[in-house]
Amino acid sequence: MNDISDLPEIVERREKVEKAIKEILSHGEYEPLLRGMQRYPFAGGKRWRPVFAMLTADCVAGAGEKAMLFGIALELIHNFTLVHDDIMDMAETRRKIKCIHADKTIHPDEHYRLAYAIDVGDALFAKGFEILGNVDASDAIVRRLLKETAKMVLGIAEGQQMDMDFAQRYNISEEEYLKMIEKKTALMFRTAAMGGAIIADGTERQIESCAEFGTLVGIGFQIADDIIDLLGNPEITGKARGGDIKEGKRTLIVVHALANASESQRKKIVSVLGNRFATPEEIEESIEILKNTGSIKYAEKVAVEFSLRAKECLKVLPNNREREILNMFADFMVHRIK
Amino acid sequence: MNDISDLPEIVERREKVEKAIKEILSHGEYEPLLRGMQRYPFAGGKRWRPVFAMLTADCVAGAGEKAMLFGIALELIHNFTLVHDDIMDMAETRRKIKCIHADKTIHPDEHYRLAYAIDVGDALFAKGFEILGNVDASDAIVRRLLKETAKMVLGIAEGQQMDMDFAQRYNISEEEYLKMIEKKTALMFRTAAMGGAIIADGTERQIESCAEFGTLVGIGFQIADDIIDLLGNPEITGKARGGDIKEGKRTLIVVHALANASESQRKKIVSVLGNRFATPEEIEESIEILKNTGSIKYAEKVAVEFSLRAKECLKVLPNNREREILNMFADFMVHRIK
Repeated sequence: MNDISDLPEIVERREKVEKAIKEILSHGEYEPLLRGMQRYPFAGGKRWRPVFAMLTADCVAGAGEKAMLFGIALELIHNFTLVHDDIMDMAETRRKIKCIHADKTIHPDEHYRLAYAIDVGDALFAKGFEILGNVDASDAIVRRLLKETAKMVLGIAEGQQMDMDFAQRYNISEEEYLKMIEKKTALMFRTAAMGGAIIADGTERQIESCAEFGTLVGIGFQIADDIIDLLGNPEITGKARGGDIKEGKRTLIVVHALANASESQRKKIVSVLGNRFATPEEIEESIEILKNTGSIKYAEKVAVEFSLRAKECLKVLPNNREREILNMFADFMVHRIK
Repeated sequence: MNDISDLPEIVERREKVEKAIKEILSHGEYEPLLRGMQRYPFAGGKRWRPVFAMLTADCVAGAGEKAMLFGIALELIHNFTLVHDDIMDMAETRRKIKCIHADKTIHPDEHYRLAYAIDVGDALFAKGFEILGNVDASDAIVRRLLKETAKMVLGIAEGQQMDMDFAQRYNISEEEYLKMIEKKTALMFRTAAMGGAIIADGTERQIESCAEFGTLVGIGFQIADDIIDLLGNPEITGKARGGDIKEGKRTLIVVHALANASESQRKKIVSVLGNRFATPEEIEESIEILKNTGSIKYAEKVAVEFSLRAKECLKVLPNNREREILNMFADFMVHRIK
């Protein structure tokens, strides 16, 4: 499966987004805070959310340019969630650079860095909503986007809380897991795709299909991410394998394994899950067990099912090049693990 | 000076706000997060921001009811900033209850509580913007409110960062201090007062006057708060005297004292400022010095000046009972120290 990130139609849009983000985050009234706000957004990222919003807007009515600013609002909000999530997850690195709260070059005092990271996240959140107010669309559309985006952030906060709470339980059901990632990850893809269709003045049926497409692709994306955490090449992903295991995340793979493992396998998994001091050998051993229980294969199968369902949603959209790319996107999202 | 919080016109509005907040925060999709979101808003608070928005809206065109929901959006955002600020300031109590991050009954693990408090704040932030989308006003007005509110939150984050950064310096100027509290505190009063006038479809001149009134009253309010921290009765304020000194806050009083104290007074102040282990005796001794340098008197004088300037702004508004109350409000804000 080719990496669709390199498709000219994606690259072109991403470059426009990149340029606009640089401009938007180039000025602020308090330089020390601005520097913090620039950190994650300037450290890379595929800009899938804005590209996604532009693609659906272009697909529905060639309105990609108008949707870009909305997509950037989501990208800033996405970056706000990353900054805060990294504190909550006690992460050390992100996009190959130190997390804000973990970077001693920012400030020697740990509490100062923590406070700074919280404030930087809040500022990115606010900046996202400020950008939303400037979207080139009617007031009625902007109001609708405001409602959807605010509801989205609330849902993401709920998903994040579920994620933290689930890490303390061993009886998470597949249904609970899916609800959690639907909120934590898929809601943003949903809002991006839906927002593009709203800005393009699509029919309610098109808007709803784009929303559903975003949800299904987003769920597939997260399941694939969970698999990449276990099987990915650290040199490419920029982080050590099995980070989710150390953090005790209840991924679909773990949920499946806890329900299907033998007693001795289960014991081993439980001993490593959420153990921040687990050795690389213990992590690799756990990954082996997750393979042996068929849990990784199972997760792959589920991800592919979501991808297939996502592609079904596209059928009500105009049949054009953008629809083709969205279709490839659904494939790529779950197949980037291969 | 009578406490205007007990005026029937204030009480009546506050009770409506109270009821609406209870209703708005009574349902959510994830109960454990919802409980956290309820905590600060349900623990009290004078609801000045919504009352303020309702008063200006009523003053301009009897539109207080329509402005209530906007005021509540601000109140939720205000509560979000309190939750996050309390983490940043390492506060222990707020409104006579334990801060979320400090309450062991929520969870025994310190990091869990920290993460929870961050997430609760984010959720209140999102809820505020969701409410904004539902304000009973035209789409054009809602869009304007969105822009103003987002800009406000960004400014508050800047003010918060300045506050933290200033605590590491001894050469803060009065101008820097005023800029900081204008962002951190006054912006929200500004947006409340201005928003009321916008919703009431006031003239641009009325809107601008309300905005300016809010700014000036907000600055006076913060200076008065700084004085209350030093002179207030702990049984009434619900917190120990001199908390700001322990936290190393550069209030107007401290800024004035550092510039005007004798060498030995300055030494004493510096030794206690930002010292979390300062004894009550050391705190009282510092307060005595701040009195002797004339710094508290000076701050009182400045607060009164802001209050007078605020009252000037009201002159372009219709001369009615609400304007009278806004006028009393400006007096009360700075005189509640007496």
